[in-house]
Amino acid sequence: MSLVVQKWNELAEVKAELAARDWFFATSGNLSIKVTNDPLTFLVTASGKDKRKQTDEDFLLVDGDGNPAEDTHLKPSAETLLHVEIYRRTKAGCVLHVHTVDNNLISDVYAQNGEAVFSGQEIIKAFGIWEENAAVRIPIIDNDADIPTLAAKFAKHVDGDTGAVLIHNHGITVWGRDAFEVKKHLEAWEFLFRWQVKRLLLQRAGLPVG
Amino acid sequence: MSLVVQKWNELAEVKAELAARDWFFATSGNLSIKVTNDPLTFLVTASGKDKRKQTDEDFLLVDGDGNPAEDTHLKPSAETLLHVEIYRRTKAGCVLHVHTVDNNLISDVYAQNGEAVFSGQEIIKAFGIWEENAAVRIPIIDNDADIPTLAAKFAKHVDGDTGAVLIHNHGITVWGRDAFEVKKHLEAWEFLFRWQVKRLLLQRAGLPVG
Amino acid sequence: MSLVVQKWNELAEVKAELAARDWFFATSGNLSIKVTNDPLTFLVTASGKDKRKQTDEDFLLVDGDGNPAEDTHLKPSAETLLHVEIYRRTKAGCVLHVHTVDNNLISDVYAQNGEAVFSGQEIIKAFGIWEENAAVRIPIIDNDADIPTLAAKFAKHVDGDTGAVLIHNHGITVWGRDAFEVKKHLEAWEFLFRWQVKRLLLQRAGLPVG
Amino acid sequence: MSLVVQKWNELAEVKAELAARDWFFATSGNLSIKVTNDPLTFLVTASGKDKRKQTDEDFLLVDGDGNPAEDTHLKPSAETLLHVEIYRRTKAGCVLHVHTVDNNLISDVYAQNGEAVFSGQEIIKAFGIWEENAAVRIPIIDNDADIPTLAAKFAKHVDGDTGAVLIHNHGITVWGRDAFEVKKHLEAWEFLFRWQVKRLLLQRAGLPVG
Repeated sequence: MSLVVQKWNELAEVKAELAARDWFFATSGNLSIKVTNDPLTFLVTASGKDKRKQTDEDFLLVDGDGNPAEDTHLKPSAETLLHVEIYRRTKAGCVLHVHTVDNNLISDVYAQNGEAVFSGQEIIKAFGIWEENAAVRIPIIDNDADIPTLAAKFAKHVDGDTGAVLIHNHGITVWGRDAFEVKKHLEAWEFLFRWQVKRLLLQRAGLPVG
Repeated sequence: MSLVVQKWNELAEVKAELAARDWFFATSGNLSIKVTNDPLTFLVTASGKDKRKQTDEDFLLVDGDGNPAEDTHLKPSAETLLHVEIYRRTKAGCVLHVHTVDNNLISDVYAQNGEAVFSGQEIIKAFGIWEENAAVRIPIIDNDADIPTLAAKFAKHVDGDTGAVLIHNHGITVWGRDAFEVKKHLEAWEFLFRWQVKRLLLQRAGLPVG
Repeated sequence: MSLVVQKWNELAEVKAELAARDWFFATSGNLSIKVTNDPLTFLVTASGKDKRKQTDEDFLLVDGDGNPAEDTHLKPSAETLLHVEIYRRTKAGCVLHVHTVDNNLISDVYAQNGEAVFSGQEIIKAFGIWEENAAVRIPIIDNDADIPTLAAKFAKHVDGDTGAVLIHNHGITVWGRDAFEVKKHLEAWEFLFRWQVKRLLLQRAGLPVG
Repeated sequence: MSLVVQKWNELAEVKAELAARDWFFATSGNLSIKVTNDPLTFLVTASGKDKRKQTDEDFLLVDGDGNPAEDTHLKPSAETLLHVEIYRRTKAGCVLHVHTVDNNLISDVYAQNGEAVFSGQEIIKAFGIWEENAAVRIPIIDNDADIPTLAAKFAKHVDGDTGAVLIHNHGITVWGRDAFEVKKHLEAWEFLFRWQVKRLLLQRAGLPVG
């Protein structure tokens, strides 16, 4: 099987799983997977598709600038530049970006801190962190309608082969070595966000949590 | 494939997706899709069916007054008149009406304002609005058991080829050029409603959101 | 197709739909459908089965006292007596009993009133009530570990061919002419319960609902 | 069918059901089923797999010390020692461990009591307890990154053929005679946790529950 077909199938499988959880409301979200390193090419979701469906126009191959690397009528996702920043700066192999109600709420509650920090939660081991009472932090950046501006802000937080950033009221972007790892990290973050939103409500109601 | 079959399948697909989310509790909700412009005909859900099932009695063809355009024992949805108002006044091609707990709650919280307004949310781009800090508003009208009276109130807010109205404690009606666009807008509204309901609870609990 | 097979299939279909919503946690819940009037026989769920599975031991035929009407190793649901009370006193054709978190919460919040009352909600039309501002009430009875005692309390509220009762911290029992109607009513009640639980939280947080 | 295949299929079926509820976020959770008593062997989930998928590397056979009982490149779940404690001390035939948001919240709210106690809930009958107003208790132990230390704390609460323990911010471990019983108990606990989390919010908002 050609490499591009293999990567296509891998990304399609992740897309189907996230779509089953309804994490792509209103055609939001975008996904990509690296195909070659030199020159850099990756498959990225075509703009404006309903991601609950599986079609042969779901993804297109783009180059290291995020422009189509093949003759196509498809347009890459409007936010492809954020994926470009990740692939250029790290060895990441896959990037997932989704909007959920809880990731939006967490990005709002902690916006003024510029980050959300979580600790004392077993699910943190999913990040490969095994220390007792380990903490994980996710930066929160301002949203910007201008994608190059947003990508520049975003790039400042891209400093490892795995990572994640919350964009204020705009969702989470997670990257990692391969689709398996990125999906695992995304699920861990979303678990932390759901847990924290309910925990804040219990806490503010006077219950002894946290 | 005949036009009516093509439109039937398009509407059936949307119905199945919304049913999978359980947005048609207790046979509530109704859907339609335009078939011809001149004379105006559209397919609309038959009254009182369980919309989780797919049958060949799910829809019937009606004329520009909402009366059956074919010989049938089926009755069009009791609220077909609202669809008539939309197709007569705009170029809309599809109309979706669903009851969800969150769209009912939002219609109640903001009833006295006559509208709900949302801003600072990336999902707003789903409406084709790309400005920074754009706001979207959805009018909220009183519910009325008399459908012609309700349809008259409703018609005052039907002034574009895409749009949406909340009926107080009765659900949302969304219209647009085609099934794809209307479903996208419906998902965007429902995302905004879920987000806002949880956000209000966090806000009132003293958390720095909004 | 024999009548008993037809009724079996009808009940199996409803069971599968409710199981898909996870309304039978921990083998809770029970369902029945009438097969003959004279003598009275009905199919009822066998005790202790996992209702997410479809097997040929899901139901058994019982007589008007709730005892097996056929040679079988299966035991009828422990709460079959409540179904007996319904079939003896009314023309109901189907009975559904499910435990959900929200029906338990509503049964608790309004226990001291002996009933929960809902109004100003469009979904009430699912009960065939079309008046403006109509109200629906559901009685709430104390739970009792002794089933004959519980059935006697329950019987006092069985006075129509369709109806519903909440048992305190034990779920809802709904009956009606056929499986279609009972499922529709059950969905309408569950919608009302979910809506009311969230509405109470918004209300107590100071928002202008209700 | 060989015993090990039969047990594999039984465990795979439970895994698929729990995965359908998304109770294995971020590869969390682990499951096992006893195969032989003398010597003790059991099938346990391989470490680090995505439990939403069904593959022939999902489980491996281990001995009474939790070490592979067959030649394999697979590693048993990091928490296999907790399963060992259960099979050595009781006649349990199956063990399920899952992380959910609500079991984490309950483990936090009641951490200082060292246990959570529930009563007045019909679902308690799922534990085979039929007395009026019966109460059930689940111990809550501190989490520990060192698995042998955690297993030692855990073992103190393993004193029956069926049982359950909450680990603080780490999920629930449930055991019982067979997969059917353990899944039933797990569902009953998760129902109690969801119910209690919402009930606490209603209670603190001043509503007359509990």
